Amino acid sequence: MGALTLRLPSLSSIFIPSSFSSRSTAILRRRNHHHHLQPTIRFCTRSASSAETSASTPTSTTKPKSQDKVITPRSQDFNAWYLDIIYHAELSDYGPVRGTMVIRPYGYAIWESIQDYLNVKFKETGHSNMYFPQFIPYSFIEKEASHVEGFSPELAVVTIGGGKELEEKLVVRPTSETIVNHMFTQWIQSHRDLPLMINQWANVTRWEMRTKPFVRTLEFLWQEGHTAHSTPEEAEKEALQMIDVYTKFAYEHAAIPVIAGRKSKVETFAGADRTYTIEAMMGDRKALQAGTSHNLGQNFSRAFGTQFTYENGQRQHVWQTSWAISTRFVGGIIMTHGDDAGLMLPPRVAPIQVVIVPIWKKEEEKLGVLDAGISTYEALKSAGIKVKFDDSEQQTPGWKFNFWEMKGVPVRIEIGPRDVLNKSVVISRRDIPGKQGKVFGVSMEPDVLVSYVKDKLDEVQASLLSMATSFRDSNIVDVTSYEELKAAISDGKWARGPWSGSDEDELKVKEETGATIRCFPFEQPQGTKTCLMTGGPAEEVAIFAKSY
Amino acid sequence: MGALTLRLPSLSSIFIPSSFSSRSTAILRRRNHHHHLQPTIRFCTRSASSAETSASTPTSTTKPKSQDKVITPRSQDFNAWYLDIIYHAELSDYGPVRGTMVIRPYGYAIWESIQDYLNVKFKETGHSNMYFPQFIPYSFIEKEASHVEGFSPELAVVTIGGGKELEEKLVVRPTSETIVNHMFTQWIQSHRDLPLMINQWANVTRWEMRTKPFVRTLEFLWQEGHTAHSTPEEAEKEALQMIDVYTKFAYEHAAIPVIAGRKSKVETFAGADRTYTIEAMMGDRKALQAGTSHNLGQNFSRAFGTQFTYENGQRQHVWQTSWAISTRFVGGIIMTHGDDAGLMLPPRVAPIQVVIVPIWKKEEEKLGVLDAGISTYEALKSAGIKVKFDDSEQQTPGWKFNFWEMKGVPVRIEIGPRDVLNKSVVISRRDIPGKQGKVFGVSMEPDVLVSYVKDKLDEVQASLLSMATSFRDSNIVDVTSYEELKAAISDGKWARGPWSGSDEDELKVKEETGATIRCFPFEQPQGTKTCLMTGGPAEEVAIFAKSY
Repeated sequence: MGALTLRLPSLSSIFIPSSFSSRSTAILRRRNHHHHLQPTIRFCTRSASSAETSASTPTSTTKPKSQDKVITPRSQDFNAWYLDIIYHAELSDYGPVRGTMVIRPYGYAIWESIQDYLNVKFKETGHSNMYFPQFIPYSFIEKEASHVEGFSPELAVVTIGGGKELEEKLVVRPTSETIVNHMFTQWIQSHRDLPLMINQWANVTRWEMRTKPFVRTLEFLWQEGHTAHSTPEEAEKEALQMIDVYTKFAYEHAAIPVIAGRKSKVETFAGADRTYTIEAMMGDRKALQAGTSHNLGQNFSRAFGTQFTYENGQRQHVWQTSWAISTRFVGGIIMTHGDDAGLMLPPRVAPIQVVIVPIWKKEEEKLGVLDAGISTYEALKSAGIKVKFDDSEQQTPGWKFNFWEMKGVPVRIEIGPRDVLNKSVVISRRDIPGKQGKVFGVSMEPDVLVSYVKDKLDEVQASLLSMATSFRDSNIVDVTSYEELKAAISDGKWARGPWSGSDEDELKVKEETGATIRCFPFEQPQGTKTCLMTGGPAEEVAIFAKSY
Repeated sequence: MGALTLRLPSLSSIFIPSSFSSRSTAILRRRNHHHHLQPTIRFCTRSASSAETSASTPTSTTKPKSQDKVITPRSQDFNAWYLDIIYHAELSDYGPVRGTMVIRPYGYAIWESIQDYLNVKFKETGHSNMYFPQFIPYSFIEKEASHVEGFSPELAVVTIGGGKELEEKLVVRPTSETIVNHMFTQWIQSHRDLPLMINQWANVTRWEMRTKPFVRTLEFLWQEGHTAHSTPEEAEKEALQMIDVYTKFAYEHAAIPVIAGRKSKVETFAGADRTYTIEAMMGDRKALQAGTSHNLGQNFSRAFGTQFTYENGQRQHVWQTSWAISTRFVGGIIMTHGDDAGLMLPPRVAPIQVVIVPIWKKEEEKLGVLDAGISTYEALKSAGIKVKFDDSEQQTPGWKFNFWEMKGVPVRIEIGPRDVLNKSVVISRRDIPGKQGKVFGVSMEPDVLVSYVKDKLDEVQASLLSMATSFRDSNIVDVTSYEELKAAISDGKWARGPWSGSDEDELKVKEETGATIRCFPFEQPQGTKTCLMTGGPAEEVAIFAKSY
């Protein structure tokens, strides 16, 4: 075996959750699952309070074999809740290498819906998909000074290839600006080759120390757009256009009311002139940077000699942008919309939009109920609705109600023997607990039902955005002094206030409060402003928050 | 920088084409492009004979600035032709690391069409997409004995992460059976968890020594399906089902008449009990293994302890399959359908199915011609046809004809002043050169035109499959003795003959002729057979050929 005989890695290596307080319980819970959990009780009933949403049907007749497998209530321990949901809803699992993540079908389907939305928008705005190699010569990373400073601590490096020590060590891409510019330099000659606007869907690797499923993993999936332009104005317009695409995506598709704005110099991407960001407020009120768009200026084109020729023969370096959204966004969806009962998915990202649960007690009721279930399933499916008919006989209807609520399915249809007689169904909304969210006697007639369900899905979509917006707005505090800022942050809220402080002032806030400038929002209040820190005049308000 | 300061790699490192004879010219040609080529003459007119397809319009008025930039005729040097096409049609480019490939938008769009087709079929047959990490502990690879033997010479190994030498060295996935089984072992408990049927779209790395764009690259893109079953029969059925999906894909979508069959023991995947394959005949009559489906038996489940419990409580190892198609298939499409004029794409994979070229000489003709061009473009586009309106004024119509033929666009529409008067267009087929492929006076009326164009696209699709089938069939020789086999192979053909030889016999054929058993085809002739090598009885015919 020679040089290739490597050491046996420790298979017990696992994620280090970012909240150490919940670490040991999370590990224990996980170990229990893998070693003792029977497959039929992968999900167990939750607390009585959350079961009240299914009051009209028998619940919990499947006896939980192990009472500690409940989902930690979100209100009790946000991080434990998050890890429980990830596990029980089968969104992802831990890879064998510390910090890596296996994205399971249910989680991957959410990512596919993100891809489907963005791919259309990227193409509409003139970008083409392509693919760059993931191995980058280390010297490339060194060419742009601030880039290497930002990324070198996080690199994974290939040193052995084909059984031999490599002469040229290779970086596994942490981002592709360098290799993109190496290629752009070959493809761009004249102003007629510009703008050059491309995108790739790819995996990237960053050697993160503190990881958390979806939010921060050693390897993750993303799209990275890269463009080159013949004027700085065009590059700026592109960077802004793409943060706008992301903003609309967050609102329209993921029902996340992000705040779009500009990063401070301290928080700007390593190698960019300006970074635009969308910042989302999670359920624990921490901020999540959910997407970024960078105006790279000529930083990379100068480092790589990416030049074009004007019509008059003059040579000039191109102006560039790059922009990305990653699987981290899936974590953002989970942490924005979940509740104590589990996941709550906006219909537009939900892998299953509607679940149909048949209910019968006597054997003679079964056929009619199942028939009605199948017809309903077919009607919804042929209308393009993502529907699941849960006709398994392993579990009670009550168990299924809890299970699919925990999985975040936006709309549930119940069909019992009385419904069959009445040619109607019962419809429940995931976002409104209990009887308030339930409508009885909705006609089974396909056209009527399909249109009713579509409306309901739209309502749930709008309701989730509206709830998240209220939550966000009630947790942003306008501050005028550093004292107020500190109070807001220590209350767990976001602080918004005028800022013209120095980089040092900004780092001081971070040290003393744990909060950073998330952005200077595009939406700015009118009037003169006084910097909350220096008392000098300020042009803009900034938003400060603790973040993931 | 410390441990992270690595050596400057040689940037002149490039692909080693598999045919050394054309290596130096290919390198020269490539260098010329990068250093001297003006962007406006990235593609230059070809030989007079191939220009005759555009006889009715002026050609070559853009004077080629550098006569050596023509596409090498396919009939003259297949490998040089292939590399020329890859470059001029902008399908891919060479990455900075030897053996890596940048897939450019035009090439990537072909891959996207492959993804779109297969994704639907995979989901129809019950598979879900997901994603596994690409870093695999080396010990995993070692667990299955023949797997490590097959893959260890080709591994890329990460030894540095986050600036530190890793205790656990990591393999960059060459394929994912090992990590998949590691996870399956955690997810599968009972027979109710089976079948487990998943797929992932991912990049994979194999440290290949002799590379060629698309056909064999250090990193490539693929899909890999992985399934686990509770009976060996079910696994066998799945492996056969997926090779059938691939076969239909090749015929229906890519117009490639592959031959499906079983690999010999020598050629079976490292870790499989049986490998099924689709083998395609390229334009130079070499075989390309275009997709494989493996019945893995219990090899990986035994190595990783992937077990399930029957209803009676007994434990059993699962039976598994894996199956893959990669970006190599794009190379197969290029090498099946091209001709001396360039690429020829089946309409179903073509990124551009129809190109519209407006033709005018006098300024007063321009507006009418462009207007008609735009209307035609809109009509086809809204009918879902992938259409390009080439209204650039940099190039003559003749140049455009050649350019889009070289790019393999299946159908061309020409619109000149006389066509505008007659409310008609001229339609040319890429697969039929010259006037034979041209139809004058096709009505511009949208409904008529759309339906005419759709029919033409179907005709081209069918014609490409038919041409490739004739070519294939006229190049397979039925042989009954080793002498006949040697003669067939030395004629550059495929040899098909009864075979019951040993592994040693098979290796002898390879040594003496350069040909290998491509497969035992599913379609077998009737009657008793006598082994061409041993003279003993044979149950099957095998196909022998040289291959990529």
